[in-house]
Amino acid sequence: MEEIKIVGFGGSLRKKSYNGYLLNISKGLMPENSSLEILDISGLPMFNQDEENSPSVNVRSFKEKIKNSDGVLISTPEYNYSTPGFLKNAIDLASRPYGDNSFENKPVALMSASIGMLGGARAQYHLRQSFVFLNMIPINRPEVFVTMAPDKFDENGNLKDEMTIGFMRQLLNNLVDTARNIKK
Amino acid sequence: MEEIKIVGFGGSLRKKSYNGYLLNISKGLMPENSSLEILDISGLPMFNQDEENSPSVNVRSFKEKIKNSDGVLISTPEYNYSTPGFLKNAIDLASRPYGDNSFENKPVALMSASIGMLGGARAQYHLRQSFVFLNMIPINRPEVFVTMAPDKFDENGNLKDEMTIGFMRQLLNNLVDTARNIKK
Amino acid sequence: MEEIKIVGFGGSLRKKSYNGYLLNISKGLMPENSSLEILDISGLPMFNQDEENSPSVNVRSFKEKIKNSDGVLISTPEYNYSTPGFLKNAIDLASRPYGDNSFENKPVALMSASIGMLGGARAQYHLRQSFVFLNMIPINRPEVFVTMAPDKFDENGNLKDEMTIGFMRQLLNNLVDTARNIKK
Amino acid sequence: MEEIKIVGFGGSLRKKSYNGYLLNISKGLMPENSSLEILDISGLPMFNQDEENSPSVNVRSFKEKIKNSDGVLISTPEYNYSTPGFLKNAIDLASRPYGDNSFENKPVALMSASIGMLGGARAQYHLRQSFVFLNMIPINRPEVFVTMAPDKFDENGNLKDEMTIGFMRQLLNNLVDTARNIKK
Repeated sequence: MEEIKIVGFGGSLRKKSYNGYLLNISKGLMPENSSLEILDISGLPMFNQDEENSPSVNVRSFKEKIKNSDGVLISTPEYNYSTPGFLKNAIDLASRPYGDNSFENKPVALMSASIGMLGGARAQYHLRQSFVFLNMIPINRPEVFVTMAPDKFDENGNLKDEMTIGFMRQLLNNLVDTARNIKK
Repeated sequence: MEEIKIVGFGGSLRKKSYNGYLLNISKGLMPENSSLEILDISGLPMFNQDEENSPSVNVRSFKEKIKNSDGVLISTPEYNYSTPGFLKNAIDLASRPYGDNSFENKPVALMSASIGMLGGARAQYHLRQSFVFLNMIPINRPEVFVTMAPDKFDENGNLKDEMTIGFMRQLLNNLVDTARNIKK
Repeated sequence: MEEIKIVGFGGSLRKKSYNGYLLNISKGLMPENSSLEILDISGLPMFNQDEENSPSVNVRSFKEKIKNSDGVLISTPEYNYSTPGFLKNAIDLASRPYGDNSFENKPVALMSASIGMLGGARAQYHLRQSFVFLNMIPINRPEVFVTMAPDKFDENGNLKDEMTIGFMRQLLNNLVDTARNIKK
Repeated sequence: MEEIKIVGFGGSLRKKSYNGYLLNISKGLMPENSSLEILDISGLPMFNQDEENSPSVNVRSFKEKIKNSDGVLISTPEYNYSTPGFLKNAIDLASRPYGDNSFENKPVALMSASIGMLGGARAQYHLRQSFVFLNMIPINRPEVFVTMAPDKFDENGNLKDEMTIGFMRQLLNNLVDTARNIKK
């Protein structure tokens, strides 16, 4: 069975980001014959169309890693009932210039954690609308929403909630299966 | 009649931004006893919660100008069927820290221009969902969507479409009226 | 102080509808000098544009009661991550024919109950998009989402959750205040 | 090559429905070795959970035809910036009772026509959110939005716009290809 390479990004930019924890935890939950590489988006510039044909080294590297992957994992906080600007900006960068969309035909899975009751759901549905334009293949189920995040993680960023871990494992399995199917 | 002060921001970061043009044009369409100040968001940092209690000078200034205004005008491009990351990031910055939301109870009007057929509508509806959390008072009508923007503007950023100019004028009137009503 | 008349509708069509319970409970939570009349939408026909100029008696009555009200309360289940068809159909009926939108300029408040974790949030945000077209004035806060409804209601349709009751009371206060403000 | 069976529904309920025309026209645009059967949703009852385990004959038939199909085509008007109630109600009926979702794992394509500038886009994006719950596989491209419908159709319901016909053909091809892929 061929190795499936997933790239993941997201989190918030603060050090103890719950969504950053979700990415780290996901590395340990990947199914056999698959890997997850986490991409750092903290140093990316704001997207400016005037510069899209001469991207900086880190934008080029971000795009290359997505293109060379078999699928994408995004772990997103929810800011103001939508996707955070810094995360949407990373997506905007990798989608351009026109005709060079790094996400084309990639399967994508979503996770989110929030301190509130909805667990980031509103950010996820806005991202799903972007996936239509990006021509990605979103995994429908299970949806991973970590509600009331401060109660769910310990000090070291471990998730104490077995049910959520089970959902994450299932989601990652589905992502890898879909990626393998597309590769055939 | 008391002067109503509106602040506007948005545009894309490229020089010949259609949405930047819309902001400039709006300055000339403001009703009597009102003004529009355009805020530059190009130099704002990415929002990082670890730094939200010690914002940089330009973030502080951006927040102050919004707080001191009577209403907000946002001119947004549409990137990947949603709000651009750089613009959402500006909103995220001004909405924080918790309890210090610069947008609280401000009326807000939206404009957008795009090269496509939908004129930025998808970006506007995502922003409207953020306005619920931000507790803003969005103007419903008229919706200003400039479709096929390259045909509508001349080389100097003037809008050649009288119907759109009429809609913009009406929207700005409604924004100023609502702001005046709230101030009473 | 003038009496404020609110009309409410929604619920699901089943007898023991949680959202129907929310409407009934709301009657007892209305602030002084206000009333809530619940409108029955169970017998309304499907909207058909060919018939919009000769509405049936119950459609005419439904429209009249909305028009004569000072504000609207909608209690909505969530079906398939959106507004239920039967409820959206009632809204479609009352919004037509063109130029005779019963909801024009009415303030509106939303509640929802669901058996799941999100409490009907996805149905509420889709309705909020409709309110833009309908030119309604939606109340932003508090959002009332009753999650895991079977645990929150007793056999007789009483709500056992004091926090939710407090939110409902606050929402109804805000709706009546907004309606009173518009009437001035 | 095995025959692929698509079922289509939607339209509005009026006789000269533009969206009904789109369904009829689609019959003539299906690729080889595929067929489109149009399902009548005009006589379906409102969904009522109390009755979901004893559906009427026409609900049972509607569900069976979807289940026996290889994919679904929906042609939707836009009412009040969202999906029409009567159409969402048909989807609600076929999705229930819990555990008996007729749409499970079916590919789905969307078309819409409207008299306005956005061509039904807002109805389509709300439907796409429902498809997540329904676990459907939506076709991303091309999106078929027929704007300013009265100018595009002749008196007999023929589409005079070759570009739109080309998009419809491509969308139907993609739907049938996806359905064939799933069947393997």
